[in-house]
Amino acid sequence: MNLILFKPSDLLNEAEGSLRVVINDPRRISHLRDVHNAQEGQIYRLGEQDGAIGDGKLISLTDEQAIFSFEPNALPPTALNLHVLLALPRPRMLARSLQNLATLGVKQISLINTARVEKSYWQSAELDEEKIQTHLELGLEQARDTVLPQVELIKRFKPYVEDTLPGILQHRRGLVADPAGTLACPRGLPQNTPLVLAIGPEGGFIDYEIEALQSTGFESIHLGERILRVETAVVALISRLY
Amino acid sequence: MNLILFKPSDLLNEAEGSLRVVINDPRRISHLRDVHNAQEGQIYRLGEQDGAIGDGKLISLTDEQAIFSFEPNALPPTALNLHVLLALPRPRMLARSLQNLATLGVKQISLINTARVEKSYWQSAELDEEKIQTHLELGLEQARDTVLPQVELIKRFKPYVEDTLPGILQHRRGLVADPAGTLACPRGLPQNTPLVLAIGPEGGFIDYEIEALQSTGFESIHLGERILRVETAVVALISRLY
Repeated sequence: MNLILFKPSDLLNEAEGSLRVVINDPRRISHLRDVHNAQEGQIYRLGEQDGAIGDGKLISLTDEQAIFSFEPNALPPTALNLHVLLALPRPRMLARSLQNLATLGVKQISLINTARVEKSYWQSAELDEEKIQTHLELGLEQARDTVLPQVELIKRFKPYVEDTLPGILQHRRGLVADPAGTLACPRGLPQNTPLVLAIGPEGGFIDYEIEALQSTGFESIHLGERILRVETAVVALISRLY
Repeated sequence: MNLILFKPSDLLNEAEGSLRVVINDPRRISHLRDVHNAQEGQIYRLGEQDGAIGDGKLISLTDEQAIFSFEPNALPPTALNLHVLLALPRPRMLARSLQNLATLGVKQISLINTARVEKSYWQSAELDEEKIQTHLELGLEQARDTVLPQVELIKRFKPYVEDTLPGILQHRRGLVADPAGTLACPRGLPQNTPLVLAIGPEGGFIDYEIEALQSTGFESIHLGERILRVETAVVALISRLY
């Protein structure tokens, strides 16, 4: 935890104009106690969800509650102007991919069904709203970011590609990761370049899906002759693009 | 498994000049049976450890053994000319990092002790030779590569940096990942650029370690303001460098 993320409702205005943060979340409390061996009087990096970052001085810590005085003094890091369209990965890989996407600064994530996504993945407990939120929070805390990504679940590929993507592509360049693609993944685009990046499941998109994406305007890009696992490809693509 | 890796000793020359591969390894047998639902007569991609890649036609499959006829027809993908010096990560992260390094084409990996590496990590079962081998093989099979990386364990930082690294740096540019570095991580270097890349533990190298590396000639590079987990940073750095 390079940052302790708190909710706007955890922030209290004190009478004398100073700010107080009261955290009751068991995960954060136990992390403070067990990993940081937190001591009263020490300064930690705190961030308000979707808000500012600052220094938090630990005033008191019990098994149930941590109280900080808080002085905001920084903005969260710049986000990527990137919408990721990711074929729903198997549960453990989903957890790590969501964390990585949040860490890397992606703010728009669409998890989509494709022919090679196993149906059982849609029943995974990792898709519970609370679980998704936790993975994203862990990713933000790692990167010292506060702005939660939006995650949507898209269970039908065809109507999304035919009806929704054309609108998105009016304002974004569409790229689909495809080992058979002819274009090498672009490198070092300016951080504010608006992109939508489609990444297939293990085994890849099927031909029909690639063609459907291409016919809405997506360009097929590849990372070379090595086939990467989905969670590795996500990181490799994003760090090469921006 | 995008490739089934076999050992040179699994390869038999038949009388009629054809090649036969006999695999007894339980992990691969069960993968063929349970994941691929392998059928006799089907063609799979096979590769000889440190050797060629080719088509393998499944001749017979039992609970203990798979026999293929083998026709080599390709070389493994080009390796990166990159020596990675990685502070020993905690066990689960080590497993994934070794896999990722093998998948990305790194052939020289030195796992090193630093001030922030927990002593207990050196007792981890993941450091058994056989476990390391398995993680590397999984990474190679993912990338369709056959050339096993060399892994060495370096339990003393100072003598390695003072006595061994200067020799390595005569032929390689040294880079150390350091969030406080002034140089942004270089991008898109030619694949044969000889580099040695040092990556610290969770929490980073301590100042003394950064200074010791710099005084042997390492340049400090950063990936921007976001702090990545080690296993994410490994992938992000390598895919940006090459």
